[in-house]
Amino acid sequence: MLGFNFNKQKPDVSQDMKIVNNMRALGIDMIHEAKSGHPGIVLGAAPIVYTVYAKHLKFNPSDEKWVNRDRFVLSAGHGSALLYANLYMAGFDLSIEDLKQFRKIDSKTPGHPELGMTPGVDCSTGPLGQGVANAVGMAIGEAYLNKLYAKEKLIDFYTYCLCGDGDLMEGISYEATSLAGKLKLNKLILLYDCNQVCLDGYTKDTFIDDIKMRFSSINFNVLESDDDVSNIDAAITKAKEQTEKPSIIIVHTTIGKYSKYEGTNKVHGSDLEEEDIKQIDEKLNVRNTPFSVSDEAVHLYREQIETRNKPLYKDYMNKIKKLSDEEQEELEALKNGDTKIIFKDFGYDYPEEKMESTREASGKVLNGLASTSKFLIGGSADLSSSNKTYLKEFDKFNRENYLGKNIFYGVREHAMGAISNGLALVGLKPFASTFLSFSDYLKPAIRMSAMMHLPVTYIFTHDSITVGEDGKTHQPVEQLISLRSIPDFEVFRPADSNEVIGTYKTIFQNPSAIVLSRNKTAILENTSINEVRKGAYILEKEVAPLQGIIIASGEEVELATKVVEYFKNKNIGMRLVSMPCIERFLKNDQTYQEQILPPEVNRFIIERSSSYSWYRFENKQEHLFTVDHFGYSGSKEEIDKKTHFEVEEITSKIEMMLKEESNSKK
Amino acid sequence: MLGFNFNKQKPDVSQDMKIVNNMRALGIDMIHEAKSGHPGIVLGAAPIVYTVYAKHLKFNPSDEKWVNRDRFVLSAGHGSALLYANLYMAGFDLSIEDLKQFRKIDSKTPGHPELGMTPGVDCSTGPLGQGVANAVGMAIGEAYLNKLYAKEKLIDFYTYCLCGDGDLMEGISYEATSLAGKLKLNKLILLYDCNQVCLDGYTKDTFIDDIKMRFSSINFNVLESDDDVSNIDAAITKAKEQTEKPSIIIVHTTIGKYSKYEGTNKVHGSDLEEEDIKQIDEKLNVRNTPFSVSDEAVHLYREQIETRNKPLYKDYMNKIKKLSDEEQEELEALKNGDTKIIFKDFGYDYPEEKMESTREASGKVLNGLASTSKFLIGGSADLSSSNKTYLKEFDKFNRENYLGKNIFYGVREHAMGAISNGLALVGLKPFASTFLSFSDYLKPAIRMSAMMHLPVTYIFTHDSITVGEDGKTHQPVEQLISLRSIPDFEVFRPADSNEVIGTYKTIFQNPSAIVLSRNKTAILENTSINEVRKGAYILEKEVAPLQGIIIASGEEVELATKVVEYFKNKNIGMRLVSMPCIERFLKNDQTYQEQILPPEVNRFIIERSSSYSWYRFENKQEHLFTVDHFGYSGSKEEIDKKTHFEVEEITSKIEMMLKEESNSKK
Repeated sequence: MLGFNFNKQKPDVSQDMKIVNNMRALGIDMIHEAKSGHPGIVLGAAPIVYTVYAKHLKFNPSDEKWVNRDRFVLSAGHGSALLYANLYMAGFDLSIEDLKQFRKIDSKTPGHPELGMTPGVDCSTGPLGQGVANAVGMAIGEAYLNKLYAKEKLIDFYTYCLCGDGDLMEGISYEATSLAGKLKLNKLILLYDCNQVCLDGYTKDTFIDDIKMRFSSINFNVLESDDDVSNIDAAITKAKEQTEKPSIIIVHTTIGKYSKYEGTNKVHGSDLEEEDIKQIDEKLNVRNTPFSVSDEAVHLYREQIETRNKPLYKDYMNKIKKLSDEEQEELEALKNGDTKIIFKDFGYDYPEEKMESTREASGKVLNGLASTSKFLIGGSADLSSSNKTYLKEFDKFNRENYLGKNIFYGVREHAMGAISNGLALVGLKPFASTFLSFSDYLKPAIRMSAMMHLPVTYIFTHDSITVGEDGKTHQPVEQLISLRSIPDFEVFRPADSNEVIGTYKTIFQNPSAIVLSRNKTAILENTSINEVRKGAYILEKEVAPLQGIIIASGEEVELATKVVEYFKNKNIGMRLVSMPCIERFLKNDQTYQEQILPPEVNRFIIERSSSYSWYRFENKQEHLFTVDHFGYSGSKEEIDKKTHFEVEEITSKIEMMLKEESNSKK
Repeated sequence: MLGFNFNKQKPDVSQDMKIVNNMRALGIDMIHEAKSGHPGIVLGAAPIVYTVYAKHLKFNPSDEKWVNRDRFVLSAGHGSALLYANLYMAGFDLSIEDLKQFRKIDSKTPGHPELGMTPGVDCSTGPLGQGVANAVGMAIGEAYLNKLYAKEKLIDFYTYCLCGDGDLMEGISYEATSLAGKLKLNKLILLYDCNQVCLDGYTKDTFIDDIKMRFSSINFNVLESDDDVSNIDAAITKAKEQTEKPSIIIVHTTIGKYSKYEGTNKVHGSDLEEEDIKQIDEKLNVRNTPFSVSDEAVHLYREQIETRNKPLYKDYMNKIKKLSDEEQEELEALKNGDTKIIFKDFGYDYPEEKMESTREASGKVLNGLASTSKFLIGGSADLSSSNKTYLKEFDKFNRENYLGKNIFYGVREHAMGAISNGLALVGLKPFASTFLSFSDYLKPAIRMSAMMHLPVTYIFTHDSITVGEDGKTHQPVEQLISLRSIPDFEVFRPADSNEVIGTYKTIFQNPSAIVLSRNKTAILENTSINEVRKGAYILEKEVAPLQGIIIASGEEVELATKVVEYFKNKNIGMRLVSMPCIERFLKNDQTYQEQILPPEVNRFIIERSSSYSWYRFENKQEHLFTVDHFGYSGSKEEIDKKTHFEVEEITSKIEMMLKEESNSKK
């Protein structure tokens, strides 16, 4: 137990309501000032948020990143006004002025919660369902870290998640909770703001799940409450007594409570009328002056929080002081999300094999890293044997062994992505793997990794139409451009085992994907481990005056070496550039970029994926040996032939183009 | 009732098993010949497929597209060998030679089932979970068509779907089945091949849902069976008696039954050893010669099918003959998936307003079309009021009114996409809507629309960072390129109400997206309804010798007109091209393309989305006024300022570039 019974001075009910109602009024004022926002959840769910923060949440507003704090995820991110009003009243570094800037540019109070923008926000949310899965990830992370530091008892926290009907309709939340139930994450507590209204009307028009039965079927402890603070409090207390199951508390609320439109979708997503706000304030018995807050309410709230948490925080800090410097540093890194990946010995000697698929190489490197890097953890969506991501020295992550590093995600790609975000949010270095063609399933979660700048590593194998027999559904074509176009995200497509090593030396600090081949490829003579971090480098220098540059990535680099060989033999100056990461290459200064790719020189691209990635470097369509159609079921050889990815064909086309262009210049 | 008790001559059990075992052996031979495939499901689930086709499925192998046939979806698409072996034996137009070509290029038997490649395949499947949602879509379509033709009783079919553990772990299948339960689709029958093994091992390591309880919680009728044909038969019969709920039959099977590795994941996804095949054939009591099939088994199978189905088919054809020519044509169109959208009067006069958001215009056009086009049906993922896709003349689609055209999908984007595919597969013209930023949630289903060439229309509103206050999670940036890069898919981004009309006149035949603004934009003088189908056209012709071309799309066209105005006033030859659809533009012949975009002329792009879409037309980075970072929470005006999307700034930059380039030419 966390000591939450600690001499608790329970304010009387009227005091609770005074605080809750001030919070409600403040949230409504924010929305009115912004002329935009979601009043329904503010009025309806304020008692839930209040109860969590006042009676249960372990936190310290002055040390918002406290590594052992309880986590709170507002999966229903449109309730941001409620969250910010609450954070202000709870004592975080937010001012009334900040609240007035709600939804205005560059404010600390954006339209949906954003990590890093607002003190006390544990997670960016907005796209529904993501937050539930993020919370599951945090709870998995807690279970792992709890065991990792079992001796010193350093990590021991609950994860609370407030979610709405919309969250529970999303498939991702089903996936994540199904896994949470299997993993018996008893320190995960979902608070379901059950108000029976969604944007388009009453939920009963589309959503009649028997929630109790549904969550019982996936091994959850199911509790219920009305919107009375003491009942919510009691339910949370009961949830915390659970030792074998995660909990969901179904809190029956009224959307837009006290508004003229309470209980309807009219109050969901737009500013209330002046007159309505006036009568709400009257009902709430708060001063009818925008942004005025009762000092007494704020004081009562903060006092409760402090009384409960100060001793916990003090105890923890005393415990920390006794740790070695090294241990303290490690905890600090965990707190700041910059734990180290240790490369000293990654168990993978410089490859002796002549041929190896990059997924195989990746598996070896990953296994090496895992043995030395205690914060590395991850898994696959039921494809670990194909993705080569099983960490052989470690067990499965499950109730019997929360130190297992292999998370069996099941065929739940989307949840896997968002759970990985949750793992990163508690300081771990997660990886997640599936086939590249199924990266689409988790794209919304990858976008959130990028937005939150989380060090999540996505390992996507079975790249390109060369996967062969499984056919077009399993053959990525447009997935690379889809990933490359995500802002603040880096996609690596290594050519061979060397570049795989180079990639692993580069990633883990930023949201990244490593894209790997199913098929064996040659381990090339000149590929460089160290150059990968630059994104592109010269793999074969031209042997005669430069006439053309071939840019290739991944599996196609081997093919490109043969193409270049042809020109070399004919004494035609053809350069080969390996470009494992476009985004990285573009971050180099212009000098480096032009050194690798001198302007005005013909470029030819070889990559079996959508040409959209490459027009930036070369916009003559015929110079692009790329794939802009779906694939085929057949052997790699059959497909190469059908799609003209053969050395002779490519060389002859390039040669002809060089001739034509040289003629046209004459 | 469909008359399935029709004088059924039940073969004795040994006959059933003879057919099933021949089917098993054939599937195993196919995989062995291909050296690739999934034997586990072939051996395990053959009795299920056999029972459906032999005892229940209403179909005619000689008229595979019979509009009133029962549908069968193999959601576990990796069971393709089983499906093909079954289709051959059931009498479809497939030869043993075709089966020998399994997984070979250009064969009728690709690695996963592909619509249009194999007679008898109702749906492309492979990516898990999709098939379940496709089946839900077919069942919704049946309910609608059943009522539409209630008087003539023309449509009345069941939809069967065989799914595995993997399908049920996927969030999309939860979403789709939750909706199916709500909609009481009693003619949907899921057959769950429950073998407790997935690719990475035993399902119990990741998936412990109490399936009975889970499906009960979403209003399904739950039945169980072992893998005995007569028990599966009885369960299906019971499922068909349901009038209020969809059914799931949990069929307890053994993966890879009779293999040395039966009941383990070793038998899931790779070819069996020669010796194992030999002993399986012995156990199955089939001739041990690859691809040999007992004539008796084939005969017995086809006889059952014919006895049961011939009278049904004959009755139906007699019924058809009595219909008017017009009605017959309509049914033929339904069968071929080319039903008409009627544009005669789409209830939207040439816009009188001076300002209108394109989502508003879309709503008007869509409402007009819906009133005249009986096969148009669709909905939104709980955003119909924002997407403006509610069809006001029609009701909600639900049990009480299956003629309602407004499907309330709930916050279930992914299922919405795949359900739309199912609707299209039974001949309807579905639309599906949500915010563009959430198009990521349904991308895997959109990919399947494109792959199957289904006429599904995706309506994505709230385009671009200009949505403002909701912040970056709600602001699309990379979504346009993600959609544009899907092969065989067209993305339209109309500039104003005129182009919205033009878009709706162009789509509905192919998989397409229409991308719409939240904000009001000016209805422009020169925008053309008719030119949209060409993808791009000259909106403002230069008034002086051509110095530059501005290409813009969507909301940015209005901005671009102001930029061009500036140059016009300075007598600088600047052309404005509106490009609502890149894919369409590229389908024009070179003459048209060069007429619109003469080569060697400076181009400038204005579009608030990832620049990756545009390098094809212009690869000088500074010529691209695009967005390659996430958005911001703030008003549209604040965001425009912060991101430099203002007329003065753009004009001055372009002017400077023109000067520099003209100087450098001197």
